Amino acid sequence: MKLWGGRFETEPVEIMEEFNASLSFDRRLYREDIAVSRAHAMMLGKTGIISAEDAKAITKGLKEILTDMDKGKFTFSPSDEDIHTAVERGLGEKIGETAGKLRTGRSRNDQAVTDLRLYVMSDIDQVAMLIADLMAALTDRAESEGGAIMPGYTHMQKAQPITLGHHLMSYVFMLDRDAARFIDCRTRVDILSLGSGALAGTTFPIDRDLVAKELGFSKVSANSLDGVADRDFVLEFMADAAITMTHLSRFAEELILWTSREFGFARMSESFSTGSSIMPQKKNPDAAELVRGKTGRVTGDLMAMLTVMKGLPLAYNKDLQEDKEALFDAADTLKKCLRIMAGVVRTLTFDAARMSKAADDDFITATDLADYLAVKGIPFSAAHTIVGNIVKICVRKNKRLTDVTLEEYKDFSPLFERDVLDVIRVKRSVERRESAGGVAPKQLKSQITAARGLIAARGNDPSPGA
Amino acid sequence: MKLWGGRFETEPVEIMEEFNASLSFDRRLYREDIAVSRAHAMMLGKTGIISAEDAKAITKGLKEILTDMDKGKFTFSPSDEDIHTAVERGLGEKIGETAGKLRTGRSRNDQAVTDLRLYVMSDIDQVAMLIADLMAALTDRAESEGGAIMPGYTHMQKAQPITLGHHLMSYVFMLDRDAARFIDCRTRVDILSLGSGALAGTTFPIDRDLVAKELGFSKVSANSLDGVADRDFVLEFMADAAITMTHLSRFAEELILWTSREFGFARMSESFSTGSSIMPQKKNPDAAELVRGKTGRVTGDLMAMLTVMKGLPLAYNKDLQEDKEALFDAADTLKKCLRIMAGVVRTLTFDAARMSKAADDDFITATDLADYLAVKGIPFSAAHTIVGNIVKICVRKNKRLTDVTLEEYKDFSPLFERDVLDVIRVKRSVERRESAGGVAPKQLKSQITAARGLIAARGNDPSPGA
Amino acid sequence: MKLWGGRFETEPVEIMEEFNASLSFDRRLYREDIAVSRAHAMMLGKTGIISAEDAKAITKGLKEILTDMDKGKFTFSPSDEDIHTAVERGLGEKIGETAGKLRTGRSRNDQAVTDLRLYVMSDIDQVAMLIADLMAALTDRAESEGGAIMPGYTHMQKAQPITLGHHLMSYVFMLDRDAARFIDCRTRVDILSLGSGALAGTTFPIDRDLVAKELGFSKVSANSLDGVADRDFVLEFMADAAITMTHLSRFAEELILWTSREFGFARMSESFSTGSSIMPQKKNPDAAELVRGKTGRVTGDLMAMLTVMKGLPLAYNKDLQEDKEALFDAADTLKKCLRIMAGVVRTLTFDAARMSKAADDDFITATDLADYLAVKGIPFSAAHTIVGNIVKICVRKNKRLTDVTLEEYKDFSPLFERDVLDVIRVKRSVERRESAGGVAPKQLKSQITAARGLIAARGNDPSPGA
Amino acid sequence: MKLWGGRFETEPVEIMEEFNASLSFDRRLYREDIAVSRAHAMMLGKTGIISAEDAKAITKGLKEILTDMDKGKFTFSPSDEDIHTAVERGLGEKIGETAGKLRTGRSRNDQAVTDLRLYVMSDIDQVAMLIADLMAALTDRAESEGGAIMPGYTHMQKAQPITLGHHLMSYVFMLDRDAARFIDCRTRVDILSLGSGALAGTTFPIDRDLVAKELGFSKVSANSLDGVADRDFVLEFMADAAITMTHLSRFAEELILWTSREFGFARMSESFSTGSSIMPQKKNPDAAELVRGKTGRVTGDLMAMLTVMKGLPLAYNKDLQEDKEALFDAADTLKKCLRIMAGVVRTLTFDAARMSKAADDDFITATDLADYLAVKGIPFSAAHTIVGNIVKICVRKNKRLTDVTLEEYKDFSPLFERDVLDVIRVKRSVERRESAGGVAPKQLKSQITAARGLIAARGNDPSPGA
Repeated sequence: MKLWGGRFETEPVEIMEEFNASLSFDRRLYREDIAVSRAHAMMLGKTGIISAEDAKAITKGLKEILTDMDKGKFTFSPSDEDIHTAVERGLGEKIGETAGKLRTGRSRNDQAVTDLRLYVMSDIDQVAMLIADLMAALTDRAESEGGAIMPGYTHMQKAQPITLGHHLMSYVFMLDRDAARFIDCRTRVDILSLGSGALAGTTFPIDRDLVAKELGFSKVSANSLDGVADRDFVLEFMADAAITMTHLSRFAEELILWTSREFGFARMSESFSTGSSIMPQKKNPDAAELVRGKTGRVTGDLMAMLTVMKGLPLAYNKDLQEDKEALFDAADTLKKCLRIMAGVVRTLTFDAARMSKAADDDFITATDLADYLAVKGIPFSAAHTIVGNIVKICVRKNKRLTDVTLEEYKDFSPLFERDVLDVIRVKRSVERRESAGGVAPKQLKSQITAARGLIAARGNDPSPGA
Repeated sequence: MKLWGGRFETEPVEIMEEFNASLSFDRRLYREDIAVSRAHAMMLGKTGIISAEDAKAITKGLKEILTDMDKGKFTFSPSDEDIHTAVERGLGEKIGETAGKLRTGRSRNDQAVTDLRLYVMSDIDQVAMLIADLMAALTDRAESEGGAIMPGYTHMQKAQPITLGHHLMSYVFMLDRDAARFIDCRTRVDILSLGSGALAGTTFPIDRDLVAKELGFSKVSANSLDGVADRDFVLEFMADAAITMTHLSRFAEELILWTSREFGFARMSESFSTGSSIMPQKKNPDAAELVRGKTGRVTGDLMAMLTVMKGLPLAYNKDLQEDKEALFDAADTLKKCLRIMAGVVRTLTFDAARMSKAADDDFITATDLADYLAVKGIPFSAAHTIVGNIVKICVRKNKRLTDVTLEEYKDFSPLFERDVLDVIRVKRSVERRESAGGVAPKQLKSQITAARGLIAARGNDPSPGA
Repeated sequence: MKLWGGRFETEPVEIMEEFNASLSFDRRLYREDIAVSRAHAMMLGKTGIISAEDAKAITKGLKEILTDMDKGKFTFSPSDEDIHTAVERGLGEKIGETAGKLRTGRSRNDQAVTDLRLYVMSDIDQVAMLIADLMAALTDRAESEGGAIMPGYTHMQKAQPITLGHHLMSYVFMLDRDAARFIDCRTRVDILSLGSGALAGTTFPIDRDLVAKELGFSKVSANSLDGVADRDFVLEFMADAAITMTHLSRFAEELILWTSREFGFARMSESFSTGSSIMPQKKNPDAAELVRGKTGRVTGDLMAMLTVMKGLPLAYNKDLQEDKEALFDAADTLKKCLRIMAGVVRTLTFDAARMSKAADDDFITATDLADYLAVKGIPFSAAHTIVGNIVKICVRKNKRLTDVTLEEYKDFSPLFERDVLDVIRVKRSVERRESAGGVAPKQLKSQITAARGLIAARGNDPSPGA
Repeated sequence: MKLWGGRFETEPVEIMEEFNASLSFDRRLYREDIAVSRAHAMMLGKTGIISAEDAKAITKGLKEILTDMDKGKFTFSPSDEDIHTAVERGLGEKIGETAGKLRTGRSRNDQAVTDLRLYVMSDIDQVAMLIADLMAALTDRAESEGGAIMPGYTHMQKAQPITLGHHLMSYVFMLDRDAARFIDCRTRVDILSLGSGALAGTTFPIDRDLVAKELGFSKVSANSLDGVADRDFVLEFMADAAITMTHLSRFAEELILWTSREFGFARMSESFSTGSSIMPQKKNPDAAELVRGKTGRVTGDLMAMLTVMKGLPLAYNKDLQEDKEALFDAADTLKKCLRIMAGVVRTLTFDAARMSKAADDDFITATDLADYLAVKGIPFSAAHTIVGNIVKICVRKNKRLTDVTLEEYKDFSPLFERDVLDVIRVKRSVERRESAGGVAPKQLKSQITAARGLIAARGNDPSPGA
């Protein structure tokens, strides 16, 4: 069934029908589509644009279709070009030609974008909850095992000792900004487009505020062209998804490194690992690799839609049909990855002993040594040079900082005293970094407290069906 | 000069020095870099980490360097690898080895990202003002000439008559969302990273709140790893820029169409046009074409940075040096394009007669005809089919809707009465679309009033030096 | 069924099974997968690695599975994680534990990439034929109706008169380069990876040349790590697809313009158009809009895969599982768009009168006027300025070049003589551009002849099932 | 100076002049631009379109300008909008109004693209040589130190033992395909556009073959619209650059891992490392990190240009001005990265002992064990399961495969005999993988021989100034 045959002499050819059809991917919007139609019909009835009786027949029919679709009992026809057409055809079969009155004062242009806005709002709510859940998983591990000392890296080289908790919490704050970004985006999705008609509004005395209220929108679009032609909310959602995935990809990379033999800081649960068809010994961190890989996918979705939108004149153009598949793919991928990562975090086994051993290595407290001298009044730049020389000599002699005697230290600078031997201890290095946001244990506690507040604000545990 | 030679036995080779250096592009951060250093030095003095005297010497020296750089009198050395090094070297030349105390309790890692955050906040403020200025330019034209009737298009085919004002205002609302997106982004840029040290905070008793206040940051980063390692604020800024450019590209496309001979709706000012070296008659809308083209550039910048960030382990990696050029390019391009578009809008000449003539064409009021029947009680779907047939017959007979007589209309449906001949007039079509956000003149007035409020909220006219 | 359970104590959780599984998208490789397995089994038999009897049982079993799958009678199990697993499970059910011998001397790593290489080679062949078909459609129209004069544009402004044939043929040469790019790519796909094992080759005395010959590969990969770990052939295919789509998007844009009321150069067949649910008069060029939009999709696919590959260490990583969906999407989209465009070109109706009228406008022969003066010895730059002035005066006086009298021309330059009135005629302008590749009719003939040769070289009409 | 002022009443505004100007980036094309002009002038003289005298004056003048520019003595004017304008203005100042004859029969449209094609051909030649040089550096190291045994990884988990030489050679074959891709691209760049005029060819009897020969082009563009409007050669070059960078990013990632303390397989030369301003002990593999990061940049450049080209109608549009900066950035970045990587490879210090130790770990020869059973007639699938169980038990008991006694092996399968204890030795595992492309030493020799041939074919050592 088509909604537009009147002026045409002939039918599209088959490859064109297929090329044009969107039912295969927009049918997932059926709940939103029916909700939008019901709100519209209700409003048409209340404003007297159609009779109360007709409105009732339509809303009743739509409710039945919803039930049918929920139960998988609705029969789609190969000729339904999209979900809107399918619903309207179904309605006609149920209530006869009154179904045609549903189209009064609206167009597929404003209907389609309204469906999509409802869908995106719901997805944002789910994403916010899933982010909060991953934040909770990280915070829980940071609280229970976060005191373990591990090496901090820059340039993949050991830099300064940190704690596992500090490391895990850094992702909590990244994720909180991700959630905030989605929530900010939501205010720009939360605008009712319905009532914009094809592009110019409508001659019927519709009541858009009534529809907005019924559907849960806070605002009504101020300009009908803008209402049907823009998809910036899709771009923004995808950009937010790509940024979140980028964060996940960084953590995924670290998990892959940590679970390697070389690092050995953690073991991934078998539940999130797989093996090899040829190498019997393999246990691979597939969950993390897939998350890292799927980052490309979401970035690609964003790039696709930016390219689609570039240079499109107003108002609706068929190019915009490309909005849905890319959006759904980005949203589905992000939600799956968030769930997987929460599962991975909750089931990971950390090896505190390996971490601690790795931290006690490679001149990792050299900065503490320089700070020590700086405190005694030498400019930090000079202190840095002195310690650089100590390191150079140690490398040549194959020594560690703890192998250097006090006398030897004094040869480098008379300012070194006995307490220097304490300062270069890894544990002391961690404890002494008490600046706000630093790695000292009491700072970790503050971070955890702060995070609990953010998590509570962001959402609850996602329900199983979310 | 390098800040790190101590432990090295040899020097980098020349191609590596060049490959590694960032001074050519990060020198534009000199104001931010010096501000950050001055705030840091002031805090080191107030907290007693260095003496008040040293702090004073440092801040005084920095102020002189700022003056030198502002005046173009500072001599950069080919061996300065970045702006931080150049400033510290300059300071050393002015005040001797005390300069080295400036490095106490901080690292290039936290310093560089703090510089960048200050820069981005300032750019967001400029962008918001420039967006507001373009909104104002559009609103002014919508107010003064917006009543002109023009064809509205979907699929690049004439759809329904609209007004020039309605069309221009649609971009005002898009741009307002763009500005809102940047302002939301600002809350995530507005976080002090300084004090995160290299990655783990510092052992010195620094006062980060003091520094934040001095530099105008509202928050202090909660986790030092996150503070130095993330660039999500860069990604978000670029995504916002790409979305805004996408809006500009759509308007640019329309300007190119409107100024073509075929449309002829507008003439671009010679001030924003160029000619041809071979074809003496050409006057090309280069300004709009360049804006459309530069959309690719900003999208590319975003893609670049998403790729850079993908899969980077914590904390700082040298890859992040790539953040600046892409960011600067995106920001500079966006600001230029916003200015150009404001200039284009203010100097465009509209041809209301051509628009009006174009609107009175191609069965553009066929929807009104269908609405007419629907009001009389026929389901809209049936009305749509009837009007589709009228159009089909007209196409065959080469007639327009206004060529059809009342009797002929009645042949299609007995519901047609004399007033149908009024309904199909273009002007009536516009006037009757009084739904909220519709094209009717009084709706345009509301839009303009609303826009004036938004513009006032978004910013003032950008100052010449912005 | 899994191919790797042995060393595991527990099973993956359900969301992980789903996240990990690739059967939903890699099942389309079943023909390639079975062909690869059959060639492998045959080789194992011939080299005596397994018995001839076992080899025969395996190849027979595989053939049956192929038939089952072709007929849709093969039952996939939800626990089959990919097509390789499904086939091996099916084989086991048919021939018992001998099926397990198929895994001798190979790995999923080399098998999966070999399947994909076969698939891509086949897709390249199809794409080359489809491109040739579109080239043929364009050349046919250029031959039959190409003499029609139309305006040539630069900057969307009328520049010089050209012919429809010349315009259509420009796409033929673009498409020929697109085909050449794919064919060059094919030489880098046409490399047998099988025999690379998991990453290091195998201890079994396999004969890779035998397998290559059986499967139609010309070369065998020289290094086993490279053989399993690289997907540059996927990137190259996608880049070629994105470039081809970019060409199609340009033609699509032109079709959208040409079928607008403002241009009116062509009418799109109803077979490739659609209508509106609200506006009964609409006939929209959806086919072209979708092609233009889908360009973004293919660009996004390429960006996805470039991001996936960035920074992946050797050899196989699970991230590479992302190669297939993006590749399939890019290839399917490109093939559909090529077919659609060929259909559109073959059914388009050109309006030669509208084109010709549009060409006779807007000082379109001003260059001829400047050339005229240049021939008489004035430097072209001076001639350009004189004609620029003529145009300026004409614009002020609202005249066209053909309205200017000989005497008036002489006022601008004494070099103008009677024949200038011929030179400014549009038809003469076209005829006189006889430089190689120019718009003169005889040059068009040469182009058509050349194109016929290229089309013959690139492929035949694609079979309906291609 | 502008080449087009005649028909204009007013001047562009200043921000527009700046926005429009391309001299800042296209001046690097001055050699190509002058070569093109000289070839054009020479042809104009030979064909008698201008006098031999004029042609001589022009070519002489151009030669002087070339010398001036080479010596940095040419004075560019702020009003020169591009390099073409600057050269023509300079020529006018040298030889008077005869300079204006140079514009006869050509346009900036065909001139600009011809300049760019010459530039890209030269860049391809340089890139091919630089790739060959990196291939040579890798092959040299593979030859001299390639026998060292190291772990091979899949999923970042130890998989099977390989050799350093085998690993390095895998990149040689990737790079060879990269070079081949550029060389294929070159055949599509190597087409003379000059003579296409603005878009339609020219009325002057030009001889394009003469110009092609003079400039070193093998072909002449067949269609003038295509000749000026397409930039597919730019897209293809960039796609090839992005794929090559992706290969480099993978190697860069591995170098970063190898030079970490955890792996310790290699030490990067201090010449390609840098230190930290705060941590005196740091030696960071910046060269590799920058190469990995700059991969994003080149991908972004490609994305930018794909977006620019999408949906652009024919022929030239000003958007195309964006082709140069992205192209130059991609080409410059690629060339720098290739040089840096060759330097890194030549100066890297490998730690064969660390590699070898790392290889002897983690059940890395489990596949050999399974192969052993398969050879004895058990289906590989069954052998895989048995060995999986052995690994599981070993993990529980914290044993390695070499800790398992023959008797214990026999408990898992009676097929195990004394020689199994040899089979599980790492060195044997490597030696026995003699399949074509496998890791066995004699296969490495073949690879090196093959590579020497490829390197010789691809280019010579790049000259210092390349």
